[in-house]
Amino acid sequence: MSGNAPDASSLGQAERDFSQVDKHRLVTALARVLPPTCLLHDLEDLRPYECDGMAALRQLPLVVALPETEAQVVDILKICAEQAVPVVARGAGTGLSGGAQPHRFGLVLSLARFKKILQIDAHARRAVVQPGVRNLAISEAAAPHGLYYAPDPSSQIACTIGGNVAENSGGVHCLKYGLTLHNLLKVRGVTMAGEVVEFGSLALDAPGYDLLPLVTGSEGMLAVVTEVTVRLTPKPQLAQCVLAAFDDVVKAGDAVAAIIAAGIIPAGLEMMDQPATAAVEEFVHAGYPLDAQAILLCEADGTPEEVAEEIARVRALLEASGATEVRVSRDEAERMRFWAGRKAAFPAAGRISPDYYCMDGTIPRKRLGEMLQAIQAMERKYAMRCINVFHAGDGNLHPLILFDANKPGDQHTAEAFGAEILELSVALGGTITGEHGVGIEKINQMCGQFATPEILAFHRVKAAFDPAGLLNPGKAIPTLNRCAEYGRERMGSTRQPAHPELPRF
Amino acid sequence: MSGNAPDASSLGQAERDFSQVDKHRLVTALARVLPPTCLLHDLEDLRPYECDGMAALRQLPLVVALPETEAQVVDILKICAEQAVPVVARGAGTGLSGGAQPHRFGLVLSLARFKKILQIDAHARRAVVQPGVRNLAISEAAAPHGLYYAPDPSSQIACTIGGNVAENSGGVHCLKYGLTLHNLLKVRGVTMAGEVVEFGSLALDAPGYDLLPLVTGSEGMLAVVTEVTVRLTPKPQLAQCVLAAFDDVVKAGDAVAAIIAAGIIPAGLEMMDQPATAAVEEFVHAGYPLDAQAILLCEADGTPEEVAEEIARVRALLEASGATEVRVSRDEAERMRFWAGRKAAFPAAGRISPDYYCMDGTIPRKRLGEMLQAIQAMERKYAMRCINVFHAGDGNLHPLILFDANKPGDQHTAEAFGAEILELSVALGGTITGEHGVGIEKINQMCGQFATPEILAFHRVKAAFDPAGLLNPGKAIPTLNRCAEYGRERMGSTRQPAHPELPRF
Repeated sequence: MSGNAPDASSLGQAERDFSQVDKHRLVTALARVLPPTCLLHDLEDLRPYECDGMAALRQLPLVVALPETEAQVVDILKICAEQAVPVVARGAGTGLSGGAQPHRFGLVLSLARFKKILQIDAHARRAVVQPGVRNLAISEAAAPHGLYYAPDPSSQIACTIGGNVAENSGGVHCLKYGLTLHNLLKVRGVTMAGEVVEFGSLALDAPGYDLLPLVTGSEGMLAVVTEVTVRLTPKPQLAQCVLAAFDDVVKAGDAVAAIIAAGIIPAGLEMMDQPATAAVEEFVHAGYPLDAQAILLCEADGTPEEVAEEIARVRALLEASGATEVRVSRDEAERMRFWAGRKAAFPAAGRISPDYYCMDGTIPRKRLGEMLQAIQAMERKYAMRCINVFHAGDGNLHPLILFDANKPGDQHTAEAFGAEILELSVALGGTITGEHGVGIEKINQMCGQFATPEILAFHRVKAAFDPAGLLNPGKAIPTLNRCAEYGRERMGSTRQPAHPELPRF
Repeated sequence: MSGNAPDASSLGQAERDFSQVDKHRLVTALARVLPPTCLLHDLEDLRPYECDGMAALRQLPLVVALPETEAQVVDILKICAEQAVPVVARGAGTGLSGGAQPHRFGLVLSLARFKKILQIDAHARRAVVQPGVRNLAISEAAAPHGLYYAPDPSSQIACTIGGNVAENSGGVHCLKYGLTLHNLLKVRGVTMAGEVVEFGSLALDAPGYDLLPLVTGSEGMLAVVTEVTVRLTPKPQLAQCVLAAFDDVVKAGDAVAAIIAAGIIPAGLEMMDQPATAAVEEFVHAGYPLDAQAILLCEADGTPEEVAEEIARVRALLEASGATEVRVSRDEAERMRFWAGRKAAFPAAGRISPDYYCMDGTIPRKRLGEMLQAIQAMERKYAMRCINVFHAGDGNLHPLILFDANKPGDQHTAEAFGAEILELSVALGGTITGEHGVGIEKINQMCGQFATPEILAFHRVKAAFDPAGLLNPGKAIPTLNRCAEYGRERMGSTRQPAHPELPRF
């Protein structure tokens, strides 16, 4: 147990000041445990690490370490613990909420060289990989066995499994196949004290507190991941996709709720509004109906019989919900074309606007129509366009606010627009992030999402793993001072007693 | 933050001494916040609480509190925190590992009066219930909507959802439908400091550390549950059960591995050995083939087409694995009869032996045959019979060791027999508990299951929620002193580097 624990009364109150970190002393100590190729500290070498996928904010670190072995990770963490240096672990840097943004007085610990696939066990349907392995590379390695790794974030070509663990990443198919957590068996990591700890087990349940879900999605604040054991999933025999058009966004939202309420869990259930389909269509020619106010994409997978039955049920529900057109992919090429449009939504936004700001709120499915109408009103209020793509099946919104960072005030307006969307997500009974994490982007909104006892519980858990607060400080969990400044009165605490008849504390 | 935190160096070393607790002072304080009907402290009133389902060990508490509101739970916990009184929360007391066994200087906090079903939301497929609601009562309340609560521990008529959360309970169908955790959305609870905290959310993922899985299965050591929001599952259109006979236990074990390796996730996949079927058959007349060395029960559910396809695939795999007989239930009555035998295994053991000791190890599926052979050798070594029923699909063993507590030395022999089974489970790459929890029963084996860094991580997490160590002390997580005494040399630490080529710390 490290002795640097904050005393109880100060826990979670304020950020720690790291301005006393001595770069020369740090580099000297690191040079003793790392070969020169594993240690960057010149300005031009540090530049590629100054931001992650949230490029609006940039910050150079003092040092970047690129260890090649777990022993080196242990050494680096021990040195940083001793010198009280903040450490930011980093995978491919594709995160969208600034979780891997460097600390100005800190070290970036890149896991880029941990890229070995250590084992594919087809019989037990699992793979053991190092954290720097790309998400898609796992599926590619498993393909000869008829297996794949199910979670598929849009960035799956580039993003790494270590980053997926840190953010508990989702993707188009997570509605049916679960988030990263649901496809993990075991994570091996190193705490800030340099201890190697294994989280999870190969069994369905394991004794002791269940620390795997705690570490998963912890945004690099509890431990540095050095090895990941994932579940592999058999490739379905067949997948087919239904495209449905609606003349009204509320009807499309209601159709989503109806499909889920009928007990169907599609492999994917996505929604795009008219501005999004228009932006996409002229880019990838997916064949979307351009006169529709909204389209839904609903995928069924399984055996041919299962797919046929599910598609028939989905078609009936879509028609009953007022779809003006329902098309079923006739072959794999058409299915891929339907999805190509959805997957191109972000680049399409980048094509029609100099910049865009991708939001990530989650709301109850039945409020989708309401949210879309509110966003239309916000477009008028902020005089700024927003195109909408949703993981509709799980209520996860990705509104893309279009702006031009070179226009004075535009970025600020986009941020205010985004904050209002997130605040409305919480007010509708949802959350401020579906799958992109909190990072630095949404740390203020955490004050509205959670009440003080929950935020304190987060700080206590953090202190249990990292009492000195050196792992990724300033991310994901706001200090109580920050919440006081941000002003709870802005949104009010949204935590309500679940049942008004029960007493409220 | 309570100020009673242990200092870092002593964390997890030794049990705290509670002999200074003053019963009179405790009762006086509690009487100020609870009506007399909610407070028991006379010997005859305490007697029903002296043990849970692990009846071999009995211990009276000082006091039993039966609060009726969350406000009373808060008051009770604050009083106990102030007077440093250990608190053991209790549901129906059906647990099998002694998790709800009272502390001799402590208070039992019974949630028996929290038995309201607060909401069934059929559209969102969830139910909000108080912790004292019985597992089966949730399914009964959901039945009119075509829904049910999937986890089905054998004790589901009696056990409560609060206890299910504490133990992360499983059941015959958890192979397909998941453990308690996988069917939870939100848990509301009170910490030892009297703070009300909500864990989890209604969204697929929520920001902040994921504390729901941490609290689930924490055996009442982190918080007292006051409200649970569970997922409801649509009832399948059809279920059918296959009964297969084998002339060799190893072949039956291999068949289980073959079914799972083929990508089939049956709704249930259970195994019984010959002594178990013999004990059951003369009791419930399930129609099991008595000459078989082992039988498998494999259930398929879903649409009629899905069931027919899965049954055909399972039948082919069973035959290829050397089944001597394969029968498919022809109607619901026969299906229920097949299961009646399996579900009667525990009472059947009680019928042929004065006492039995139910073990709960989990091993990799492919080692099932090996384990059964080893248990046969142990029967000879200890001159004691053991009948075997397994949740084979997830490798969860329930060997029932038959003994007579009135015979001198018999209980001790049964415990040694059981410990050897658990140690072998760990050595085969498994764990010491599948679904019954650690409690006090398996706390020594935790020392073999986990290495010191993991046990320390558990203690740190515990201290984050309950720094003074008042919630269910002495359960689930062993102290380091205990591990030293138990002697790591007995089993050795089983944690191996996942890959020999990686450095070991």
